[in-house]
Amino acid sequence: MLNINTKKSSIITLLLFIFFVPYISTSSSFAQKREEINLETLLDETASAAGEMPGDMKFQYEMAELLGERVGPDDSGSVHHAGGLSSFYTGPEKLFPGKGTYGHLFNFLPVIRWYDPAHYYNNDIFHPGSTVEGEFVNTECVTCHMVESPGIVKQWKQSKHSKPSGGEGVVGCDRCHGKNHKKLIMPSYDICGECHEKQLQGHRQGGQGSHANAYHLELIELGCQTEKPAEETTACLGCHVVENRCDGCHTRHRFSLTEARKPNSCAVCHSGPEQYEYEMYMQSYHGMIFQGEGQTWDWTKPLNAENYTVPTCAYCHMPEGDHNVISTSTVYTYMGTSLVDRGADRYKATRDAWIAVCKDCHSPRFARDHLEAMDEAVKLSFVKYREAMRIVMDLYNHNLIDPMPAGLAPDSTGHNVFSLLPGKGEMRKYNVSNIERLAYEMLVDIIDAIFKAKSHNAYYSPVYGYWEWAQDRWLIMIKDEASKLKRIAEIEKKIGIKHSAYSFWKQGEYTDLLLGWKRKE
Amino acid sequence: MLNINTKKSSIITLLLFIFFVPYISTSSSFAQKREEINLETLLDETASAAGEMPGDMKFQYEMAELLGERVGPDDSGSVHHAGGLSSFYTGPEKLFPGKGTYGHLFNFLPVIRWYDPAHYYNNDIFHPGSTVEGEFVNTECVTCHMVESPGIVKQWKQSKHSKPSGGEGVVGCDRCHGKNHKKLIMPSYDICGECHEKQLQGHRQGGQGSHANAYHLELIELGCQTEKPAEETTACLGCHVVENRCDGCHTRHRFSLTEARKPNSCAVCHSGPEQYEYEMYMQSYHGMIFQGEGQTWDWTKPLNAENYTVPTCAYCHMPEGDHNVISTSTVYTYMGTSLVDRGADRYKATRDAWIAVCKDCHSPRFARDHLEAMDEAVKLSFVKYREAMRIVMDLYNHNLIDPMPAGLAPDSTGHNVFSLLPGKGEMRKYNVSNIERLAYEMLVDIIDAIFKAKSHNAYYSPVYGYWEWAQDRWLIMIKDEASKLKRIAEIEKKIGIKHSAYSFWKQGEYTDLLLGWKRKE
Amino acid sequence: MLNINTKKSSIITLLLFIFFVPYISTSSSFAQKREEINLETLLDETASAAGEMPGDMKFQYEMAELLGERVGPDDSGSVHHAGGLSSFYTGPEKLFPGKGTYGHLFNFLPVIRWYDPAHYYNNDIFHPGSTVEGEFVNTECVTCHMVESPGIVKQWKQSKHSKPSGGEGVVGCDRCHGKNHKKLIMPSYDICGECHEKQLQGHRQGGQGSHANAYHLELIELGCQTEKPAEETTACLGCHVVENRCDGCHTRHRFSLTEARKPNSCAVCHSGPEQYEYEMYMQSYHGMIFQGEGQTWDWTKPLNAENYTVPTCAYCHMPEGDHNVISTSTVYTYMGTSLVDRGADRYKATRDAWIAVCKDCHSPRFARDHLEAMDEAVKLSFVKYREAMRIVMDLYNHNLIDPMPAGLAPDSTGHNVFSLLPGKGEMRKYNVSNIERLAYEMLVDIIDAIFKAKSHNAYYSPVYGYWEWAQDRWLIMIKDEASKLKRIAEIEKKIGIKHSAYSFWKQGEYTDLLLGWKRKE
Repeated sequence: MLNINTKKSSIITLLLFIFFVPYISTSSSFAQKREEINLETLLDETASAAGEMPGDMKFQYEMAELLGERVGPDDSGSVHHAGGLSSFYTGPEKLFPGKGTYGHLFNFLPVIRWYDPAHYYNNDIFHPGSTVEGEFVNTECVTCHMVESPGIVKQWKQSKHSKPSGGEGVVGCDRCHGKNHKKLIMPSYDICGECHEKQLQGHRQGGQGSHANAYHLELIELGCQTEKPAEETTACLGCHVVENRCDGCHTRHRFSLTEARKPNSCAVCHSGPEQYEYEMYMQSYHGMIFQGEGQTWDWTKPLNAENYTVPTCAYCHMPEGDHNVISTSTVYTYMGTSLVDRGADRYKATRDAWIAVCKDCHSPRFARDHLEAMDEAVKLSFVKYREAMRIVMDLYNHNLIDPMPAGLAPDSTGHNVFSLLPGKGEMRKYNVSNIERLAYEMLVDIIDAIFKAKSHNAYYSPVYGYWEWAQDRWLIMIKDEASKLKRIAEIEKKIGIKHSAYSFWKQGEYTDLLLGWKRKE
Repeated sequence: MLNINTKKSSIITLLLFIFFVPYISTSSSFAQKREEINLETLLDETASAAGEMPGDMKFQYEMAELLGERVGPDDSGSVHHAGGLSSFYTGPEKLFPGKGTYGHLFNFLPVIRWYDPAHYYNNDIFHPGSTVEGEFVNTECVTCHMVESPGIVKQWKQSKHSKPSGGEGVVGCDRCHGKNHKKLIMPSYDICGECHEKQLQGHRQGGQGSHANAYHLELIELGCQTEKPAEETTACLGCHVVENRCDGCHTRHRFSLTEARKPNSCAVCHSGPEQYEYEMYMQSYHGMIFQGEGQTWDWTKPLNAENYTVPTCAYCHMPEGDHNVISTSTVYTYMGTSLVDRGADRYKATRDAWIAVCKDCHSPRFARDHLEAMDEAVKLSFVKYREAMRIVMDLYNHNLIDPMPAGLAPDSTGHNVFSLLPGKGEMRKYNVSNIERLAYEMLVDIIDAIFKAKSHNAYYSPVYGYWEWAQDRWLIMIKDEASKLKRIAEIEKKIGIKHSAYSFWKQGEYTDLLLGWKRKE
Repeated sequence: MLNINTKKSSIITLLLFIFFVPYISTSSSFAQKREEINLETLLDETASAAGEMPGDMKFQYEMAELLGERVGPDDSGSVHHAGGLSSFYTGPEKLFPGKGTYGHLFNFLPVIRWYDPAHYYNNDIFHPGSTVEGEFVNTECVTCHMVESPGIVKQWKQSKHSKPSGGEGVVGCDRCHGKNHKKLIMPSYDICGECHEKQLQGHRQGGQGSHANAYHLELIELGCQTEKPAEETTACLGCHVVENRCDGCHTRHRFSLTEARKPNSCAVCHSGPEQYEYEMYMQSYHGMIFQGEGQTWDWTKPLNAENYTVPTCAYCHMPEGDHNVISTSTVYTYMGTSLVDRGADRYKATRDAWIAVCKDCHSPRFARDHLEAMDEAVKLSFVKYREAMRIVMDLYNHNLIDPMPAGLAPDSTGHNVFSLLPGKGEMRKYNVSNIERLAYEMLVDIIDAIFKAKSHNAYYSPVYGYWEWAQDRWLIMIKDEASKLKRIAEIEKKIGIKHSAYSFWKQGEYTDLLLGWKRKE
């Protein structure tokens, strides 16, 4: 074991600067509580001796000594206060293999079986089994599940599936899940499509940017799936599942059209960074009027100007219930991050289609003027991005970015050189230099926000973005960062210091995991 | 053309660090898509040869070569991926001249005609004309527009204008828009005021800080209008229009009193950075109770304690429907950014008026204690600002800010020296040093937030602001930035480097536009 | 008085870079307005001569000269534009003494009497008295207060207290506030508990992390109370009062069970930084369905799957109305900032209890898979924190943090050395080095957010946190900051500069206040 006593006083000095230690107090009841923690978390020398720990364990031992906590993997349920600095990551017990081109490089947590059921749930190999045996029909299912899971039975009873209006038969549990309780099926879109043919067709016809490409294309092939450990990508899956399952929009077991007409239905996924559609709509007059009175409207009626005071998401993006949500799209620009003149002649038809929607309540000239304002605001946002990128490129060409690509851990394809040519590399937004990340944000977070703000007529966001005049703010940060990098480099050059990126850019407990697939090979 | 081949490999290395390139893949369908992009966006040498491009085009050519995209202005509707780095800004086709003292320095996009219709729409020179000829009366208008724009007809039919209760005549389309379809009028407040005299009077009586000064004073004379290109200021206009048009609060064509009683009506403008009134209200008990049950209340009733469980914006700020929203204001402090003791004797009358409003549900002592808590919290926030400014001033006096004013592009009046004397300069929040921007934010974004949080009894915002203990966070950033600037300067001095601000602070594709009006002279 | 004229031109140059000066204009009306400001705020030499000002006043005098404003304490109600740089903080008139172990170190604003009424309101010493004399019973109270404070009378009339259903007597004003108008009582939980025994018992049984510990333990003993001036801590009190008063959840005077069933009731406190429970719930399918239709539900019914489509806060955290909100808690981890394996065997019972709740609508396997996904995501977030802390510790061990602890003002216990041993120090998040603050945020703001996002099944927050992939962003900032600190230090070493932290880390107008209690001794 390391001699860490000499370091103890200095480390002890630092630690409480940083973490929140609620149990520090002179009152006796807390002192006593602290003792208990010490007793139950004595340094586990056995575990450390067993050599089950990664690389350099000095840091963990220092922390363990200081905090009186255990070193190493701890699945005992002990609470490690102050951020758990002494223990380390053990990882999930069971992982399911990845899919697609890079399937051999990543894994999924078991929760994937609910998100991609056709492949991971209904597939024999991964079928999780069931504790109940036998074949059952709907009435039998309902009898049991009225007790076992009363909520879904109630919801199903509220749905059209339980009381069809047009003479069709009841769509019961067994219709979608099968009869054999040992081989229950989790339905994907194809099962729903057996009855809802037109909707399925619309859903599947969408090109890039549509729901039909959200999982296999956007997430599996192009998304963060290959860049991140399984533990982090579950949340991504939650939304990208919309390709596979209809209950992304019509939640089970009401499968309600009324629900999907409300902006809240879309908002589960279309909100938050990069996907601010909901927030932008909600800021607009349309959204504020919806917020002020929407719950008093009769949502069972079709979305049109006769029935609704203001449009909702589906009113504009799914006219007549068209389930191809990009039918109305002018041009695919990856969340607005590609520069394009949406007012160009070649987009006349789609622009006119938009104006026809606005014309329910606005003059065509009003609509055109606002669409032009969107075009110009978005184009201007790219001007700021180019000003920033010119500065970043200049730094790069003079070898002044810290760290330069060679100073980083390799990417998920094993390269330190990136390329636009297929298969030669990939984009990265993690573990890069600060200035590169700032430039990335200026494009993907802020231009995206401006586009979505203007297209939904949000009021404060096109001005401010995330922060007051966000792009201007980022431009200041980029110039400031470039100034510092250049000044420091000039100084180093003059006094003969040859700087190279510090090793923490190449390696670290998390950074190693990020590329874990590669290191395992 | 530049020899960019030698740079290609290094540039190629950098680029994908930064931008999101969704089309990179080894799968053939994507490779094919990429080909198509290359084909349709071949480098346009004609355009570049024509010399229509701004200053140094090296950067654009490098990007074009790398991305296989067009250099120069592109109105063809081609999609420029990766942030459109090779093309450049062409600007809007048609601009309307500015107004007021600085009117010769800026322009508006055509959308201005809807925001300032008295000047830009109803004025002969800019009248956009109409495709329908003849004179029409209300019943005729409705017949056509039932088809042409059914939403507004429906909304008008829901309004009191279509079914007056007190024996007045119907207020039809022609009453506000005129009869001549070739010379349609867009109504401003004066037309509404012909019938709603009391409301107009209230609206117009407001001083600085009121709706009556939102456009001509706050935006045209003092606002960002003169500092920014037309493309960026449309979003500002959206709210500042409230001076000119009554449908900022009573949206067309219901012109509903009921709507304007709801906080959502105010929130279109009074939300977001600098204008967080809505968010602050919504965080309070008042706002949360409104959110929990507001849609079940009868909003046709007057705003008082008998009819509503909690107050809304108008309940407190427009008592008895007073349309001068600053009647209730204690003292004008530009969004709370001026230090003042609101509890001073001279404000006794307005403070007592506030307490009288609270007294509907709270004891006067309770109200006084809370108003005092607001006073003290706001005053303390200025203490932090002064601690920060003392540090910034010290840097300035020692010539240590990077960049110093002389290192920046001139401001919109052509000066590099700023002054408080009228006409000698102006404030800037764009393209300034990082530490100046931090100080600006500490005042205009955060003190403002604390004031508005406390005055609306928001719960987490006075503690946290934007971020956990926001002002404390900013103070750390300012001290950290000051430390770095001083350390680097001390080093440079010792080794004989004379630093001056890099040229990107003075010029850049956007920075040039920001001051474009000046350069055009 | 200082000779500040020579500095005037340079200061004048800087100032307008930073603050928002709306009154600058060449138009005569504004110039006139400016004159008025000058006139009413002439430099108050008397005050400055009286020596009532803190330490070094040079800065204030420079600002006063420049802005034509008063120097020193100003309670006259004059408006100090541009952030009030010339005046200084006078502090509140009246403070109430602190409580508990550190009670001698801090104070409260008078508003404390409403938050801790048993001690500060009902106690003779602090009793604020009343202007009305005599003893009154409920009917008399109501008669007067129907006029004096109609809102609360109306609310009470809507409550069960005014029309008991089960034969109990009316619970009138005098029952809780007493009869003697000169000695009115502000009720604490104990008075409510006289009738609502079961609820009180639940409330009081909670351990650390429960409502029953929110005030005396969390705020008074452990919270920010001892670290901050009274002016800043009022907002903290607003929520932590929930220990003392039942109207934190059942607002007066409806004291409604229906109200407390809605998420909005909890959201007053459980929203915003560190307390994002509400935001996380609202992002989930549960929350979005609540938002879409919740106001149409019958909230008078008990919370179960039969009556509600989705769960709310109380549905899961207060099953059967259990008022001990941590009965359902798996293990206390201080807002998720302690590392623990929640899936460990020892937590089987509480985990099964959670699954039983989910089972109303979801299969146990579905629930288990999602709980596992939460476990793993949270554990991974600690991996990133450890990677960051290893870098910070390394800097510390090499004396490279700027400032090091010795470079800071002492903490509230008077120490510059921090320790985990009881009474030897405390954690700090204010006035520390930038890199320490970044590390603090990575734990307390971001890991906390990830835990709360996953446990409420929020959709974008576990991916993004505050910002796109927030922890990864913070890791970049920490590595970047470490790089700069190391590079600058290496340079300084080579050229023989011995850096020590600048004095603004030790002292400043606010920093001095932060430790005011110590300096007063």
